[in-house]
Amino acid sequence: PHVGVLTLSCPQRPGIVHAVSRFLAELGADITEHQQFDDRVENTLFMRTAFTAQDADAETLTRRFEDTAREFGMTYTFSDATRPRVLIMVSKFGHCLHDLIFRWQTGSLPADLVAVVSNHEDLRPMAEAAGLPFVHIPVDAASKPAAEQRLLDVVEQFEADLVVLARYMQVLSDDLCNRLSGRAINIHHSFLPGFKGARPYHQAHARGVKHVGATAHYVTADLDEGPIIEQEVVRVDHRMTPEELATVGRDTEALALARAVRWHAENRVMLSGHRTVVFH
Amino acid sequence: PHVGVLTLSCPQRPGIVHAVSRFLAELGADITEHQQFDDRVENTLFMRTAFTAQDADAETLTRRFEDTAREFGMTYTFSDATRPRVLIMVSKFGHCLHDLIFRWQTGSLPADLVAVVSNHEDLRPMAEAAGLPFVHIPVDAASKPAAEQRLLDVVEQFEADLVVLARYMQVLSDDLCNRLSGRAINIHHSFLPGFKGARPYHQAHARGVKHVGATAHYVTADLDEGPIIEQEVVRVDHRMTPEELATVGRDTEALALARAVRWHAENRVMLSGHRTVVFH
Amino acid sequence: PHVGVLTLSCPQRPGIVHAVSRFLAELGADITEHQQFDDRVENTLFMRTAFTAQDADAETLTRRFEDTAREFGMTYTFSDATRPRVLIMVSKFGHCLHDLIFRWQTGSLPADLVAVVSNHEDLRPMAEAAGLPFVHIPVDAASKPAAEQRLLDVVEQFEADLVVLARYMQVLSDDLCNRLSGRAINIHHSFLPGFKGARPYHQAHARGVKHVGATAHYVTADLDEGPIIEQEVVRVDHRMTPEELATVGRDTEALALARAVRWHAENRVMLSGHRTVVFH
Amino acid sequence: PHVGVLTLSCPQRPGIVHAVSRFLAELGADITEHQQFDDRVENTLFMRTAFTAQDADAETLTRRFEDTAREFGMTYTFSDATRPRVLIMVSKFGHCLHDLIFRWQTGSLPADLVAVVSNHEDLRPMAEAAGLPFVHIPVDAASKPAAEQRLLDVVEQFEADLVVLARYMQVLSDDLCNRLSGRAINIHHSFLPGFKGARPYHQAHARGVKHVGATAHYVTADLDEGPIIEQEVVRVDHRMTPEELATVGRDTEALALARAVRWHAENRVMLSGHRTVVFH
Repeated sequence: PHVGVLTLSCPQRPGIVHAVSRFLAELGADITEHQQFDDRVENTLFMRTAFTAQDADAETLTRRFEDTAREFGMTYTFSDATRPRVLIMVSKFGHCLHDLIFRWQTGSLPADLVAVVSNHEDLRPMAEAAGLPFVHIPVDAASKPAAEQRLLDVVEQFEADLVVLARYMQVLSDDLCNRLSGRAINIHHSFLPGFKGARPYHQAHARGVKHVGATAHYVTADLDEGPIIEQEVVRVDHRMTPEELATVGRDTEALALARAVRWHAENRVMLSGHRTVVFH
Repeated sequence: PHVGVLTLSCPQRPGIVHAVSRFLAELGADITEHQQFDDRVENTLFMRTAFTAQDADAETLTRRFEDTAREFGMTYTFSDATRPRVLIMVSKFGHCLHDLIFRWQTGSLPADLVAVVSNHEDLRPMAEAAGLPFVHIPVDAASKPAAEQRLLDVVEQFEADLVVLARYMQVLSDDLCNRLSGRAINIHHSFLPGFKGARPYHQAHARGVKHVGATAHYVTADLDEGPIIEQEVVRVDHRMTPEELATVGRDTEALALARAVRWHAENRVMLSGHRTVVFH
Repeated sequence: PHVGVLTLSCPQRPGIVHAVSRFLAELGADITEHQQFDDRVENTLFMRTAFTAQDADAETLTRRFEDTAREFGMTYTFSDATRPRVLIMVSKFGHCLHDLIFRWQTGSLPADLVAVVSNHEDLRPMAEAAGLPFVHIPVDAASKPAAEQRLLDVVEQFEADLVVLARYMQVLSDDLCNRLSGRAINIHHSFLPGFKGARPYHQAHARGVKHVGATAHYVTADLDEGPIIEQEVVRVDHRMTPEELATVGRDTEALALARAVRWHAENRVMLSGHRTVVFH
Repeated sequence: PHVGVLTLSCPQRPGIVHAVSRFLAELGADITEHQQFDDRVENTLFMRTAFTAQDADAETLTRRFEDTAREFGMTYTFSDATRPRVLIMVSKFGHCLHDLIFRWQTGSLPADLVAVVSNHEDLRPMAEAAGLPFVHIPVDAASKPAAEQRLLDVVEQFEADLVVLARYMQVLSDDLCNRLSGRAINIHHSFLPGFKGARPYHQAHARGVKHVGATAHYVTADLDEGPIIEQEVVRVDHRMTPEELATVGRDTEALALARAVRWHAENRVMLSGHRTVVFH
């Protein structure tokens, strides 16, 4: 039997669960996981149903579900169990890349890393030691448009489903953000909305906060304002310099990013306006 | 419209969600919350479905659902939105009682406190200031059987649905545990299974652990071994005396117990052998 | 023997610990707790030393220490073990007041509550049940100057050493902030610097953060920008409405505020510019 | 100037801080960090003082401090800033080794990894990719004494100051534990004292706990009973299989072990009977 996942959202009204479960029952599918969230603020229902069936071909199911979807005004997606292909972008800090590589190699990341892109050469050895192609795309103000086109070519070449900015320290153009919309995840090294922008650990030190954190979010044109997928925090105190905050903060970055990538890869993240519904 | 909750468990097989959603659709019910857990270790499905319907009378629904339940071998319960009546037992420490009273008075506890029973007089003022009847039932070795019968009488007199041992420092007899099975929650002042029995903060100090915690669990005849509903922990260090561990630990006790009572009151806790499924 | 606490800060240079310990040795004092922080960013040493001595009169020690202090350019304070007198200000939410009262009554707060001031009448019963004088000072735009003068009179009347804004929902004037500088603590219901200003739980909901928190800080004229003493956080998810965020957030508010008051009362908090050094 | 650290413990009495600071002042040393803990339960003072001095030769200082130490009955150690040499032992799980290698390579671990020993060949590639010698020492019941002797030879050959059991799945003999006393750290994959012994994540699953954790402790002959240096925990729920508990638990293992190694390397951990004093 094959594994499939249906995610959908639609205006709340009676009969939705029944319609979905009837559809799956008629397929002979066996529901293995089912989660739903009735957003009473937005009057919208979000649902994720994982199932096994003799035939779980996403394209076929998508077509067969059309009538039901139309009846309820559903936005929906069928996914099969294919692991998404992930391209990772880095600059000089390797902790998130290192962490993702280990989870991938030991089978705890339900996705496949396919390449690493960087504007620096520093992490080439780490990528290549893991058997990952490393593509160096230097960027400066003048070369940015060409560099971004080059990135899109690489994304296409490696058939990447997801781009992960694992401490990639360049701001993407609005145009690139839009093209990657919904399939690019960034890790920001602060507990957003605090300390947007540059040098957040220095900002955190200056403000004297008692926890630092990290935020994994979808990339949007509005820098550090994308929908938040996951956040992790850790307690700190007055004795820690900005550098020491960064050292302990890195552990939260790696954890938050790894969770966000896993949840995205398993189709557990849905967008609700500017917020996320995460069925973990 | 009335609010109802269906909780059920049964052997896993295809068609369960469909059968339940069809039943509710035929009722004209609107599903407002639905959670399920497919325990692949035990091959059992657990489900909690909250709904609104014109008629959500638990007794009627129970009868009408019988055929469906029989077909799938379901153990099930329909509950209406009635707030359970809670009797609290204490000894001398008042932090959990104080906390539950405040949540009850401010409307954040979906249950009604109806009386306080204690083997000491110390907390009478706190109970009575909250308008709660306070019943003093002293206990010693000789009087224990009579005291426990008196407790059962009080439970009956106040029509209590749930008994909460909020730092009640007497061991209940096996017989009483069995009579209260599934409707008595205890808070133990350690992160179980560590530090069972007496003076857990002293045990924690002697062992030099770096976090202390608290465990809310159903009462069973096997002391400190009942199914765990919730646990909370807090970081501590070598400087803290047993008394200081107790002081910070009390905050975790009150939090864990309040959550456990809330989840139980909302029919969010199901038993899976010796473990709990908590649909919070 | 009497208990004393010396806190000091001064430019870093060799010999400071030696000078302080010699002074205390000559007194016949026994050091019971000693913490220091060498802020290499600011090149400043912060120190807190608790001791017991036959005579620990703060005034005498202050005078005797003058020469040493001058030599090293120290800012310093001797305190005896007197518990500070605390005036609490509230509006309608009682969770922080309720929590502080309990800690005070059970002896886990090293301070004495002396009165409650509010711009509403709602919490009069809670204050009076605890035996605390309740002073109702209504405030509107027109009456604000008079109301603030009345507050200062009450502070003086009750000889309050510390004013705790335990969810007091009025902005204080710059002048009042300055008069209470260093002796007023506020609890803000967000993890600052995120979600300053009004309705932070609604802001947190709209932004879709995955933790909410609370911040206890010294009151300054710059609203929600005072030096942070303590922060606490709790994990939340997409299912929670702003009201539910507020419900779980309240537990973090009470915890963070209680810790901040305790640390302040024990002279454990020192100011380092806009940051705090907390020797807890 | 050179960096030194003095750690000491002695019976509590007046004058200790003064004697130490006078000694350091006479050396012309500048105290950069000073922590002390007055254990009133055991009536013992623990102290750690870091300093810079023109000459911080540990041997010389040790000799010069003898008189002071004798006067106060101190147990003491002077250390210079030499980074300890660490030998890591593993079996098949690589997450802790992987984590320590990264921290070492990026400069956030104040110690030097010098070799990896394993009873399996699985992690040879990981060690060798990091440039670390990998020594395979197979163990079975019959070969255990010889294997342990071989390990001691390797410890000596690499002049290892510290042995880290980073998920080494063999029980050490009492004799080996004693020989490595105070210089071997183990990570146990549970929140001790819960779930000692084999397969703790399976035990945790069976008991239905709501957090799992990890414990870094000094190795003693009494298995899983050594003095605890650090513990980390993470929230889990009923849905997680033992394997999923292990996956999230591994993150806590790596974190707790890395902190314990760091603190040990910086002479921040002192023994107080069966407990640790950790001046982090």
